[in-house]
Amino acid sequence: MTTNSFGHVMTVTTFGESHGPAIGCVIDGFPPGMEITEAEIHEALMRRATGQSRWTSQRKEKEDVRILSGVFEGRTTGAPIALVIENTDAKSKDYEAIKNQFRPGHADYTYHHKYGLRDYRGGGRSSARETAMRVAAGALASKYLRQHWGIEITGWLSQIGTEICDQTFDADVINTNPFFCPDASKIEVLEAYMKGVWKSGDSVGAKVKVRAQGVPVGLGAPIYAKLDTDLASAMMSINATKGVEIGAGFDSVSQRGTEHRDEMTPEGFLSNHAGGILGGISTGQPIEVAVAFKPTSSLRLAGQTVDIKGDPVEVITTGRHDPCVGIRAVPIVEAMMALTLMDHILLHRAQCGDVPPQSPRIPT
Amino acid sequence: MTTNSFGHVMTVTTFGESHGPAIGCVIDGFPPGMEITEAEIHEALMRRATGQSRWTSQRKEKEDVRILSGVFEGRTTGAPIALVIENTDAKSKDYEAIKNQFRPGHADYTYHHKYGLRDYRGGGRSSARETAMRVAAGALASKYLRQHWGIEITGWLSQIGTEICDQTFDADVINTNPFFCPDASKIEVLEAYMKGVWKSGDSVGAKVKVRAQGVPVGLGAPIYAKLDTDLASAMMSINATKGVEIGAGFDSVSQRGTEHRDEMTPEGFLSNHAGGILGGISTGQPIEVAVAFKPTSSLRLAGQTVDIKGDPVEVITTGRHDPCVGIRAVPIVEAMMALTLMDHILLHRAQCGDVPPQSPRIPT
Amino acid sequence: MTTNSFGHVMTVTTFGESHGPAIGCVIDGFPPGMEITEAEIHEALMRRATGQSRWTSQRKEKEDVRILSGVFEGRTTGAPIALVIENTDAKSKDYEAIKNQFRPGHADYTYHHKYGLRDYRGGGRSSARETAMRVAAGALASKYLRQHWGIEITGWLSQIGTEICDQTFDADVINTNPFFCPDASKIEVLEAYMKGVWKSGDSVGAKVKVRAQGVPVGLGAPIYAKLDTDLASAMMSINATKGVEIGAGFDSVSQRGTEHRDEMTPEGFLSNHAGGILGGISTGQPIEVAVAFKPTSSLRLAGQTVDIKGDPVEVITTGRHDPCVGIRAVPIVEAMMALTLMDHILLHRAQCGDVPPQSPRIPT
Amino acid sequence: MTTNSFGHVMTVTTFGESHGPAIGCVIDGFPPGMEITEAEIHEALMRRATGQSRWTSQRKEKEDVRILSGVFEGRTTGAPIALVIENTDAKSKDYEAIKNQFRPGHADYTYHHKYGLRDYRGGGRSSARETAMRVAAGALASKYLRQHWGIEITGWLSQIGTEICDQTFDADVINTNPFFCPDASKIEVLEAYMKGVWKSGDSVGAKVKVRAQGVPVGLGAPIYAKLDTDLASAMMSINATKGVEIGAGFDSVSQRGTEHRDEMTPEGFLSNHAGGILGGISTGQPIEVAVAFKPTSSLRLAGQTVDIKGDPVEVITTGRHDPCVGIRAVPIVEAMMALTLMDHILLHRAQCGDVPPQSPRIPT
Repeated sequence: MTTNSFGHVMTVTTFGESHGPAIGCVIDGFPPGMEITEAEIHEALMRRATGQSRWTSQRKEKEDVRILSGVFEGRTTGAPIALVIENTDAKSKDYEAIKNQFRPGHADYTYHHKYGLRDYRGGGRSSARETAMRVAAGALASKYLRQHWGIEITGWLSQIGTEICDQTFDADVINTNPFFCPDASKIEVLEAYMKGVWKSGDSVGAKVKVRAQGVPVGLGAPIYAKLDTDLASAMMSINATKGVEIGAGFDSVSQRGTEHRDEMTPEGFLSNHAGGILGGISTGQPIEVAVAFKPTSSLRLAGQTVDIKGDPVEVITTGRHDPCVGIRAVPIVEAMMALTLMDHILLHRAQCGDVPPQSPRIPT
Repeated sequence: MTTNSFGHVMTVTTFGESHGPAIGCVIDGFPPGMEITEAEIHEALMRRATGQSRWTSQRKEKEDVRILSGVFEGRTTGAPIALVIENTDAKSKDYEAIKNQFRPGHADYTYHHKYGLRDYRGGGRSSARETAMRVAAGALASKYLRQHWGIEITGWLSQIGTEICDQTFDADVINTNPFFCPDASKIEVLEAYMKGVWKSGDSVGAKVKVRAQGVPVGLGAPIYAKLDTDLASAMMSINATKGVEIGAGFDSVSQRGTEHRDEMTPEGFLSNHAGGILGGISTGQPIEVAVAFKPTSSLRLAGQTVDIKGDPVEVITTGRHDPCVGIRAVPIVEAMMALTLMDHILLHRAQCGDVPPQSPRIPT
Repeated sequence: MTTNSFGHVMTVTTFGESHGPAIGCVIDGFPPGMEITEAEIHEALMRRATGQSRWTSQRKEKEDVRILSGVFEGRTTGAPIALVIENTDAKSKDYEAIKNQFRPGHADYTYHHKYGLRDYRGGGRSSARETAMRVAAGALASKYLRQHWGIEITGWLSQIGTEICDQTFDADVINTNPFFCPDASKIEVLEAYMKGVWKSGDSVGAKVKVRAQGVPVGLGAPIYAKLDTDLASAMMSINATKGVEIGAGFDSVSQRGTEHRDEMTPEGFLSNHAGGILGGISTGQPIEVAVAFKPTSSLRLAGQTVDIKGDPVEVITTGRHDPCVGIRAVPIVEAMMALTLMDHILLHRAQCGDVPPQSPRIPT
Repeated sequence: MTTNSFGHVMTVTTFGESHGPAIGCVIDGFPPGMEITEAEIHEALMRRATGQSRWTSQRKEKEDVRILSGVFEGRTTGAPIALVIENTDAKSKDYEAIKNQFRPGHADYTYHHKYGLRDYRGGGRSSARETAMRVAAGALASKYLRQHWGIEITGWLSQIGTEICDQTFDADVINTNPFFCPDASKIEVLEAYMKGVWKSGDSVGAKVKVRAQGVPVGLGAPIYAKLDTDLASAMMSINATKGVEIGAGFDSVSQRGTEHRDEMTPEGFLSNHAGGILGGISTGQPIEVAVAFKPTSSLRLAGQTVDIKGDPVEVITTGRHDPCVGIRAVPIVEAMMALTLMDHILLHRAQCGDVPPQSPRIPT
């Protein structure tokens, strides 16, 4: 039972603080024989990296990842794969001012009372810096899923503040703009919107969606390692997440059963309100998940709080921060989807091997 | 790694099928010395039990729970606590008709393809019958939380179909009506609404909310055993769940940071958009979670599907089913909250012992 | 993290006290599709059962095992398999006398101080009664290993007190005598020896050996789930175990490297000091393990001890006990071998799938 | 389920290959607030380090350990503690010759067939180099046990080849000689003996013993996380281990019950054949464990083997190797004892909190 790990058969353990010497992860249980390079992982990291646009934090990390173990002559060996990134652009002095204060909406107050001390520099362990390692590990999982199973994972920004971003959906547009927005016609609107947010000194929340296509029927281990259970856990563990939906999600509440249940024909399912999961097991349809991110709590607009003596203080956060953490969450959400699916492929292989289908599967 | 267990330090493992000889659970890691009787557990089970009203399934289970181990002379001993309930009112013949058919919205199709065979009687392992054991285990956890920590957990029906149920909230009303509705003025409306649903042969979804009061600051183990992560997992593992929210949940998406962040004063937090959790650790405020349940898929209105040969068939479900599974989910959601909180109290005790607070905690 | 479970991918959780209502286990992760009956499990249980000879405890358990879940129409379904045996011949009154005393060599003193209370009847949770469930679960694993892999597991009594039992080895003899002794010429000697022990009121220790043949090369997951690591753990968890050896075991201490290292030729290994495991991974040779069991501590010869007030008392144990617990340990040791091997076969399948051998394997 | 981790509540995950860029570990669940420096860890590492005497491998590692996370301003924070050591004196060219050969007694053959490829340089992941990280992690655990519980752990060489080393025992002597021998009068004998072994080109096995004093009564979580079970697992996971004994170990086989059972008086136990553990739980007496190490398999005396094509070859190992790996195992065995005990202290705290003793404990 490690509280800094996730996964059943393939586990990822992360370590590191925002302003510590380095962050890293250990991937245990990754199958042997897959080719992987530091450059491939670096490429994935750059999608998440800070300093990419004016809408994300200006901290400029090089994200030079080193593979310390588990890869020999360019191939995974079955031994644990350790990845480490040295922190290079940490400006710890920015945080001296809040050393004895609990920033509202942050983990300062809770870490302090749980552990009795805290690394206050940049949020320490509670910083979203940790998510870089999920993206690094996810790079390996995504490659495995694509190579061996033809699974493709696509994440995008579905909503930012009050702006819906995916009324038109074009997957090819997502990586052409700093918002991971799939609607080309929306990008100018978002720029203006974010400019307004930025000027106001405030921040906004976001909804991110992710879809996995090509997932075979049969992944997920009922009851407490259901595929949707593990996806909920994976997404909720991301910093700033406040909600997770599978398929129709909260819309299910007001749906009728005749509307929600996805009828089947020999030609395929007639709908996908289930989001590709029934009884905790994948149906073969696309897996669809939505995640709600709260607005950044680090604001240059003063807020009331208390210091460690319990006295009232006003706090202003002057560090480099994203006005919308949800934007950069897109590659993180994709990574958590990839890692969860790969773990379940291995788990299925363990428990069921190659169960021969006893009936025709319907097209998806 | 057991896929039918949950919990870090205190684990609950469940077993049993809807129409098998019995269902049961094993609670491992429950502290020694607490008094508990079969009658207390039975009382909790009856809140969830079927046959309690015309709005829930007419299967009449006696829910006579036996404590097989871990309790000696009325007290827990620290050994694993096994609870078993014999299934007595299973009408397996109702299911012969769908033996070779995949009911839409059910786990039939996925279990069949994952395992190559399935116990089709009443859904087998995928039946909500399993949740009785969560409620049984939850009875012990709730008692422990109340006795040792003064923690009180309250669940209620927040919405059913299109009807909002908690515009007025009176906790004392919840257990006076078959809907777990906290608004006395709403009950007649709900009866009429459900009568309409029932007559139509259709079903509706529901939103259940749960609140835990008296939770100390400091519970939750970042990064991958955050309190909200584990609650998301616990709730998503319940049958028919399609979404989970912590605090403001999906409303966070359109909030501004100045609105969402819960400012602090020496007199306490000024709001609770966080739902009582920051950085994965409890703040001392009430923990607030909302869960979306899809409408029951078992309907007497015909639906299109395929059989195990892949041929198209129409399916009508004639078994006894709830027109809204979300209603009975209220005690299940409470149980999962209790079990998760108790596990985290024990986990905190393991890793942090009694960390002396280094600063005044603010009132909650 | 359950402390009453073992296994990585396929886990066994046991529950129950010696004189409680029932004992049982839950096997999670057993692959679907294998035929199994209660009769088959019962047959395995009878090999371990008490009352089989004058050299083992006279408690007469019927061992009527019930399969409560996970089996449908005679086949495993992939759902957790719960097995339960009601305790029928528990004579709890035998234990009233030692309610407030700590029997030397027993777990009375340690359970009392760990948990603050204890089920003193027959040792409660610390009784060897628990091992029946390992044998029950082992019956399923043994069948799986034999059917799918041709793996055969053979345990025997290697030494009892000062008597060596396997100077001559004939596997066919093992099940023809109450000592699981492989040497037909030794049986009369053992009967006379045990008669002497019995008359003296004393007890003796024993050494049990077990061999698994047909194990493929490649099982075991370095570093902390090595096959020998898990076997050591599995064997040491059996009541009364004080030592575990793999292959040459403690004889390795005085061996030279040229003697110990098992040289290889295209015709096969030239020796098996390794006991079939190198670097924690099976070599394809027979897996060989030896286990030391201490002499029974329950004796009718008085011993000094203290009571729960700390006062000195003399204790005489009048319950029904084995003069040598090691004899009955043979089927338990076999069961733990079977369960460990099966878990590792599933784990290997998870992590490595079907790695094509890149070189000829040498015969074994 | 990670296969490169151990521990229940406090887990240690190791990574790294003998000749890879670095080795490291992540300690998760270490309590907050303990002071620790890189220098303290380095000191522990130097006890194990190579190049310390002519009887151990001449590889000269500086063992410059870096703390990458989990420590802030000199204190542990409760976040995962990552430790990394860059490999500096790896001479990979020594291993080119055996790239396509399977050294007898090594993990070459098994890794090759399990994973389909292997890092052949210095044994890769199967090298004892990995054990440095156990010693590093053990340095933190030992300090915690000493500071908070007054627990002292002492390991020593009990036998090397045919030479018994602890007929006279003086703990102060252990660290004054390169053999960790507790008998001053024996050291010259051992030097002559080892000179003979070295000249012969052969190697010898060893027996290491370890004792933990000051362990409170009550540690250990029956049934499958017994203290002795976990110690057996911890010790067997060390490279070259072939046997583990608790207390009387294999001597128990020929003991009588009246001899073995440790009688109790108000003044204390009269003996300690149990090795400080009854029913899997510590008694308060010293915990005593013995471990058998096989002789090094890397020899400059030619041995028969096969290559990856299956053809017969003669292999001579020319790398730098210990003629007796057991000598350097002493600090590793101590580290595994420390880590296991600490994990169980935290686990006990989780499950039992502070159970008030209901009776006087006897002196130890």
